[in-house]
Amino acid sequence: MTSVSEHLDIAPVPRTAAPGGVRLDAAELHASVSDPCLTAMTLLNDIAGRHPDAVSFAAGRPYEGFYEVAALSDYLSAFERHLVDDLGLGPEDVRRTFFQYGRTKGFIHHLITRHLASDERMTVDPESVLVTTGCQEAMVLVLRALCRDERDVVLAAYPSYVGFLGAARLVDVRVRPVAEGPGGIDLADLAEQIRRARADGLRPRACYVVPDFANPSGVSIAEDDRRRLVELAEREDILLLEDNPYSMFHGGEGRLPTLKSMDTGHRVVYFGSFAKTAFAGARVGYVIADQPMADGALFADELAKLKSMLTLNTSTVAQAVVGGFLLRNECSVERATVREAQVYRDNLRAVLTGLEKHFGEAGPLHGSGVSWNAPAGGMFVVVTLPFRADDALLTRSAERFGVLWTPMYHFYAGEGGSHQIRLSFSVLSPERIDVGIGRLAELVADRA
Amino acid sequence: MTSVSEHLDIAPVPRTAAPGGVRLDAAELHASVSDPCLTAMTLLNDIAGRHPDAVSFAAGRPYEGFYEVAALSDYLSAFERHLVDDLGLGPEDVRRTFFQYGRTKGFIHHLITRHLASDERMTVDPESVLVTTGCQEAMVLVLRALCRDERDVVLAAYPSYVGFLGAARLVDVRVRPVAEGPGGIDLADLAEQIRRARADGLRPRACYVVPDFANPSGVSIAEDDRRRLVELAEREDILLLEDNPYSMFHGGEGRLPTLKSMDTGHRVVYFGSFAKTAFAGARVGYVIADQPMADGALFADELAKLKSMLTLNTSTVAQAVVGGFLLRNECSVERATVREAQVYRDNLRAVLTGLEKHFGEAGPLHGSGVSWNAPAGGMFVVVTLPFRADDALLTRSAERFGVLWTPMYHFYAGEGGSHQIRLSFSVLSPERIDVGIGRLAELVADRA
Repeated sequence: MTSVSEHLDIAPVPRTAAPGGVRLDAAELHASVSDPCLTAMTLLNDIAGRHPDAVSFAAGRPYEGFYEVAALSDYLSAFERHLVDDLGLGPEDVRRTFFQYGRTKGFIHHLITRHLASDERMTVDPESVLVTTGCQEAMVLVLRALCRDERDVVLAAYPSYVGFLGAARLVDVRVRPVAEGPGGIDLADLAEQIRRARADGLRPRACYVVPDFANPSGVSIAEDDRRRLVELAEREDILLLEDNPYSMFHGGEGRLPTLKSMDTGHRVVYFGSFAKTAFAGARVGYVIADQPMADGALFADELAKLKSMLTLNTSTVAQAVVGGFLLRNECSVERATVREAQVYRDNLRAVLTGLEKHFGEAGPLHGSGVSWNAPAGGMFVVVTLPFRADDALLTRSAERFGVLWTPMYHFYAGEGGSHQIRLSFSVLSPERIDVGIGRLAELVADRA
Repeated sequence: MTSVSEHLDIAPVPRTAAPGGVRLDAAELHASVSDPCLTAMTLLNDIAGRHPDAVSFAAGRPYEGFYEVAALSDYLSAFERHLVDDLGLGPEDVRRTFFQYGRTKGFIHHLITRHLASDERMTVDPESVLVTTGCQEAMVLVLRALCRDERDVVLAAYPSYVGFLGAARLVDVRVRPVAEGPGGIDLADLAEQIRRARADGLRPRACYVVPDFANPSGVSIAEDDRRRLVELAEREDILLLEDNPYSMFHGGEGRLPTLKSMDTGHRVVYFGSFAKTAFAGARVGYVIADQPMADGALFADELAKLKSMLTLNTSTVAQAVVGGFLLRNECSVERATVREAQVYRDNLRAVLTGLEKHFGEAGPLHGSGVSWNAPAGGMFVVVTLPFRADDALLTRSAERFGVLWTPMYHFYAGEGGSHQIRLSFSVLSPERIDVGIGRLAELVADRA
């Protein structure tokens, strides 16, 4: 893969510091600049960059085989027609919608609520939707708003999504880990961690969870546990931060209800993403924050105030493109991503088949101590190895065996995941997966 | 002006809090939610919303008469052709550029440096450019990075741009005011404020300035003072945060050199915006951060790390549209905005002519104590009134006289600007300006 930068023909500007000129030291900058998570991701990217021919189970980006550049102009036209035909805007207001600073909360909120009604059976007040510059911005806004001072903390099921941990570091919010099992977040541990936080004089404000096919673990929360989780939040007086980027990519047996759809007490703040469904580059996501404020406004309105100091409105042209994508699919994202969902299902099967072939009961490496989980969907499988899976092993895996993966320990606060790796299969083909699992087997055989 | 929201035909969802459900209190949220600046802006928007027929000197958005929706698809095509013809990307890499997560620093950096070379005679290393989700995100990133703890403070010429003050509040950075005169920032006071901050045990890291046609004051810094300002930054070991959204809209006699173009010691972090030149809704801006880090990277690379936790890459489709805008104009933004610049010049002349007609030597209200400045360009004029110009007067001005403006005191930290108003003329016509200044004269006559 090449990029714009590699094709640029610009003479480099000399990088010598001027005499007497400034030289900055990372140690003098905000601590988030030196976040270990960032360093880890940089290292992983470096290794990947040095081994472009390796089979990469490390890349987490969505499948790209169905993208067409011409679709972008088509989506813009579809959205323009919607403004004129469905909403009755005149030419001047259409121009303003596309070109001017706009409503901070966005202008595709009504299409998002239609999508949620159609795909997730959720009834959502459009005024509670804040369209954001990707779901990442939504996380930053919610964390910034919820945490007033250093006594406010949030909880998260660990291993946890690095984007959430990064967002927390950026706004100096402490995240306290909660255990996760094969069935998702451990509810007893959640209650215990809330108790401990309070005993430490802290205010646990919210707990972050990905109920469907979590990144990195691939696990999902069963329907009964979802209900118990919402009840626990109510009982303990905390919010749940539900992140749902993967629910469209279920194994074929349909989706479980979201926490938000069970939420009668406004306990759930819901993060939505179009990164894996429309396209990642658009940077369009959203948050549903229907919590009533004391003055009658919604939490979404408070978040919009913060957004007005961070990025103002989400890019109009990006919103219009995603709006057109929704309109072209009658606001059903499930319908829009039928082909991608099939790719992910086929790839998940290929990963599990490959693992069984080499490490299963009839496999040559049966008994070598390799085990794995079998998620019902999503983009990730976790493999447990009989030896440490650290950055040194990854380097060796890339150099000697031509296969890349992500060490799981990066997704834990401190301890945990030392012998585990995450296999991401979203951009591969079943054939490449078969080759890649074979190489992984060679690595295991070599170390065993 | 109507908007998407007003055209939506959605039954409102009842807003009653569920029994036992959560209710949030702004006092429990981060202080930035309750920022007085935000409350002020909300109030101003409310007043404007209640008086749609008033002549509004309050709206700060760019002139919109030349926007065409069809241009967006044309810009996308131009950028696609650039990727293929100029940079030699194949179809797969073109698709990835448009659709996937991309380089955090952006992919129109080379076009931005061409624009700066052409329009501002600046030689900029493309690697020092970070493309951001509007200039606003760039400010947040720079403030977040530069300020490690509560001892780190920044300085700013007051009255100051509310977006900068908002960005600082969002990341808990204290801003200490520096006086501004008719020639821009007061250099003696800057040195004095740096000294005082150090005496208070603080680390002044940087000073924010808008050298050309500042918002809200309209003032510019003379060329000699620009040089002295850069020397002072070098001598005092601080950075300058140069914000340049308006330099294209000079009075016709050309532009003064930017601070960045005089910066031999990497003292200047330069904020660039396309909000007033391409279009505001795109949310594409950038920062030039060529400061060398101790490890050989550039400050822009550290900022990119933070951006990867905030919004990831700037929206690909928004970058592509702005890239196409640049390509269609041979990377000269000055050439692209010839018509807008003429509109602003004509409107500035209309404002100054109107003020002279009513309050000048031959005017009926001569001697009433009204004075004003005469900026050489930009979008703002400041008028000093012989009485307090507060929100109550604004309400009266809107209700009784049909003219809106912005009280200047909002742009000061505490004291200052109590008798001043900002007239913004970017979206008006000379005819409406003439009517509006006439109404302002009636307000003055009524109070005199």
